[in-house]
Amino acid sequence: MKPFVFVNVAASVDGKISNERRVQLRISSKEDMERVDKLRAESDAIMVGIGTVLADNPKLTVKSDELRKKRVLEGKPENPLRVVVDSKARIPEDALILNDEAETLLAVSKKADLEKLKKLQEKAMIFVAGEERVDLSELMEFLYHIGVRKLMVEGGGELIASLFREGLVDEIYVYYGNVIIAGKNSPTIADGKSLDEPAELELLEFKKLGGGILTRWRVKRKRFN
Amino acid sequence: MKPFVFVNVAASVDGKISNERRVQLRISSKEDMERVDKLRAESDAIMVGIGTVLADNPKLTVKSDELRKKRVLEGKPENPLRVVVDSKARIPEDALILNDEAETLLAVSKKADLEKLKKLQEKAMIFVAGEERVDLSELMEFLYHIGVRKLMVEGGGELIASLFREGLVDEIYVYYGNVIIAGKNSPTIADGKSLDEPAELELLEFKKLGGGILTRWRVKRKRFN
Ligand SMILES: NC(=O)c1ccc[n+]([C@@H]2O[C@H](COP(=O)([O-])OP(=O)(O)OC[C@H]3O[C@@H](n4cnc5c(N)ncnc54)[C@H](OP(=O)(O)O)[C@@H]3O)[C@@H](O)[C@H]2O)c1
Ligand SMILES: NC(=O)c1ccc[n+]([C@@H]2O[C@H](COP(=O)([O-])OP(=O)(O)OC[C@H]3O[C@@H](n4cnc5c(N)ncnc54)[C@H](OP(=O)(O)O)[C@@H]3O)[C@@H](O)[C@H]2O)c1
Repeated sequence: MKPFVFVNVAASVDGKISNERRVQLRISSKEDMERVDKLRAESDAIMVGIGTVLADNPKLTVKSDELRKKRVLEGKPENPLRVVVDSKARIPEDALILNDEAETLLAVSKKADLEKLKKLQEKAMIFVAGEERVDLSELMEFLYHIGVRKLMVEGGGELIASLFREGLVDEIYVYYGNVIIAGKNSPTIADGKSLDEPAELELLEFKKLGGGILTRWRVKRKRFN
Repeated sequence: MKPFVFVNVAASVDGKISNERRVQLRISSKEDMERVDKLRAESDAIMVGIGTVLADNPKLTVKSDELRKKRVLEGKPENPLRVVVDSKARIPEDALILNDEAETLLAVSKKADLEKLKKLQEKAMIFVAGEERVDLSELMEFLYHIGVRKLMVEGGGELIASLFREGLVDEIYVYYGNVIIAGKNSPTIADGKSLDEPAELELLEFKKLGGGILTRWRVKRKRFN
């Protein structure tokens, strides 16, 4: 069993989630950031790849006081569990995602250094799966096992591509902000290797939001390799 | 003076216009291909980069008999002028874009081999501009000079990125087909180098079409470097 998995990303019209220097750009709008905060508050866990942690140093907490209070009233922790996919435990010990505003699960592979893991264990739960890279299917089963039913994936493109390849994505929200970023080396919504056959989607929802367009798609077929 | 320049591309939800093997994929829908044929018929010229010619060997003619007849009744040639941007004249002599269904302009730079150009001159007009790469601003001026008022750019990502960088794009249509392609080496809507600052767009139009979404954007600011 695995949680319901949905991806949420903000991209430029040309599908970039950052530029070639990996600078954090304003792609999203105020309206969209509010929507993202609600999605976070409704999720049991939020997942990102280590690339995103190293580039953006995000906290991944719920920004709205009200939404956090609502969670507590519902008997949930203030913030959803944060999950970092980080095969070799490259995460800096002072990464904001390890702060005490929320619980964090660090998913590593057997390649991770034990000394580093010992230190990180004070700040995060550690889950080991996979020889070289984190085994994402095993990770999903574990997340379901510890009670995660709704998982929000916030990027980046490497992680998203792997999740699609392994048939683990149920839905994807893409907010297309009203910019063109360009760059053949810029991170995109789905990087990694191309899928052998494109994943087929069904359009569930679309609307103007801020200066851009919010779209929501369901993944029709799940296996692509 | 330059023509009104609009880009039209069909991309996956993740912004890819092909996969990493540059195989031509079905991203577009029947409804969208009809729309593209109409746009072609309404244009004075259609431009592509040599990368697209080498990958897809397109004819770039109007498919609908009716639309071609309509053009003739309006005193226009059956098909719009085809423009290939090809610095070193790498185009194969048997490329379909050089066939006699329409006129073709081959835009090259000073790097192009004279012997090759002599041969190509039987099949296309040759325009030389730029030392290494084709000077796109000069090319636009020339196109205006020979009567092109509405220019449709059909890709690929390298050419589109250069046109944005040089502030030459007025509008862009993106059809997002209902697929995810993935791949950090897949061609995207805008490749090349990242723009120093993202180009700002204004959303003009969006609607469901086939399984995907058609979007149309106006470029707000024109200079990005
Ligand atoms: N606009 C947005 O919505 C948004 C959202 C998020 C990120 N971003 C941008 O995206 C960029 C980061 O993206 P990214 O693609 O470089 O990094 P990423 O997807 O966040 O992380 C990728 C890393 O995760 C690790 N990983 C472990 N197991 C994996 C598996 N099975 N499959 C895939 N990855 C696995 C790999 O590193 P190891 O092998 O070392 O584990 C891999 O390099 C940044 O520039 C950031 O700003 C934008
Ligand atoms: N889905 C769609 O709507 C769609 C549409 C078109 C293409 N495509 C795909 O896109 C891929 C091809 O794209 P691409 O990016 O490789 O090629 P491209 O943009 O078609 O052509 C790029 C080439 O144009 C030449 N060029 C000359 N002057 C230039 C200038 N000032 N700026 C930029 N380029 C200049 C360069 O080669 P030289 O230096 O040799 O001149 C450059 O490599 C193919 O896989 C094709 O299937 C998809």
